[in-house]
Amino acid sequence: MPTINLKPNERIDQLTTNDVKIIQSRDVFSYSVDAVLLSRFPNIPKRGQIVDLCAGNGAVGLFASVSTNANIIAIEIQERLADMAQRSVQLNELEQQVRVINADLNKSLDYLKPSSTDLVFCNPPYFKLDEMSRVNESEHYLLARHELATNLDDICRISQQLLKTNGHLAMVHRPERFFEIIETMKQYNLVPKRIQFVYPKADKDANILLIDAIKDGKPGGEKFLPPLILHKADGSYTDEVHQIYYG
Amino acid sequence: MPTINLKPNERIDQLTTNDVKIIQSRDVFSYSVDAVLLSRFPNIPKRGQIVDLCAGNGAVGLFASVSTNANIIAIEIQERLADMAQRSVQLNELEQQVRVINADLNKSLDYLKPSSTDLVFCNPPYFKLDEMSRVNESEHYLLARHELATNLDDICRISQQLLKTNGHLAMVHRPERFFEIIETMKQYNLVPKRIQFVYPKADKDANILLIDAIKDGKPGGEKFLPPLILHKADGSYTDEVHQIYYG
Repeated sequence: MPTINLKPNERIDQLTTNDVKIIQSRDVFSYSVDAVLLSRFPNIPKRGQIVDLCAGNGAVGLFASVSTNANIIAIEIQERLADMAQRSVQLNELEQQVRVINADLNKSLDYLKPSSTDLVFCNPPYFKLDEMSRVNESEHYLLARHELATNLDDICRISQQLLKTNGHLAMVHRPERFFEIIETMKQYNLVPKRIQFVYPKADKDANILLIDAIKDGKPGGEKFLPPLILHKADGSYTDEVHQIYYG
Repeated sequence: MPTINLKPNERIDQLTTNDVKIIQSRDVFSYSVDAVLLSRFPNIPKRGQIVDLCAGNGAVGLFASVSTNANIIAIEIQERLADMAQRSVQLNELEQQVRVINADLNKSLDYLKPSSTDLVFCNPPYFKLDEMSRVNESEHYLLARHELATNLDDICRISQQLLKTNGHLAMVHRPERFFEIIETMKQYNLVPKRIQFVYPKADKDANILLIDAIKDGKPGGEKFLPPLILHKADGSYTDEVHQIYYG
């Protein structure tokens, strides 16, 4: 394993089911179950180009790397997070496959060709500006969680530009914004085809939404996949989630 | 119990959990789990006016009658089905509460005042005209299942006219038409607020969709209720559905 310098309060995390190691820091960013689920949601193309928008510390693209030979490009606006992602790439010796670009996703076309991409992943900021939380968050979390630097419109526009015809956009988001997401995707001719709702427990409302949309797909015939329930009544992981985390 | 004449091949069905008796006939129409779930989905107003559009044999309105003193108006275009509904009303001695109107729902405003209704139920035809099934169906089933006599646009327009501000439209439909339903509701300022997906088994895609929309509601903040799973792996009802049918 290559020697990588960790900064203060950084740690290395790894899923039991996945050899990939991810540099995390509670101070600035750590991936959550959302990233794990997103990385497993779409059919991953075996080759070609995958772009991870709003990449954070690179977890989604790094998780996906184990099941594809495609080139993976992680785009992250925050220098501190992009640096963590870049060191995770080195830690996993994935420099040949994964490229980290520290840029505003609106500048993606400065780095990548239009209609070049088979799959775009996106785990975007979930909250609108009018939902700014009252607690003091670090600047890193503010940018990761709130639509300060980007928003649904940016993400869908750039995805439409990056994707090949019939390429896929796989997004994780909050259910309470589902209709807005659908409308924005429609404006950019991204047609949602597979949707999965994730529930914290079997008797609770959904709190995570996974969407797989196709560029220039034919509208209609959307599928709603089996519900994914995270926890049993006693709070422990369901068998399905235990399998994802521990095999 | 009043004496009601049954026509050939008609039978009387009753849920164990509900005193209401429903005249059915496999030849022309019998209610399914969809109607049972729809009747339980919205908050039923205790008084005021409830309209059941595409009422069929009246099952949804009759099921709902046990939990409200509201006037219930069942509108059904097919004379044969409206007649079954009317006889079920008599069978249950609900003539004072439930009125059956044999009419095209587009004529609803000939019978009811605009902005008069607290809740509209609708279990509409699910299939578009281009999805006409190849098997020979009776005319009764054709009209009940296919958008021959009405469609989503009619239903949403009439619901908007019938409902009071903040009145509710509760609809059951197929998940593969969800986005079209959302768009049509939006055109008529019906704002979906509570959505529930129903799955035949825990590991299968959703096959029933329940939507509760509010007339002139504020957009956003939609909730996706806990998944409702109909059958266990062995094909028997789940505890939740067993409870609905048998208590």
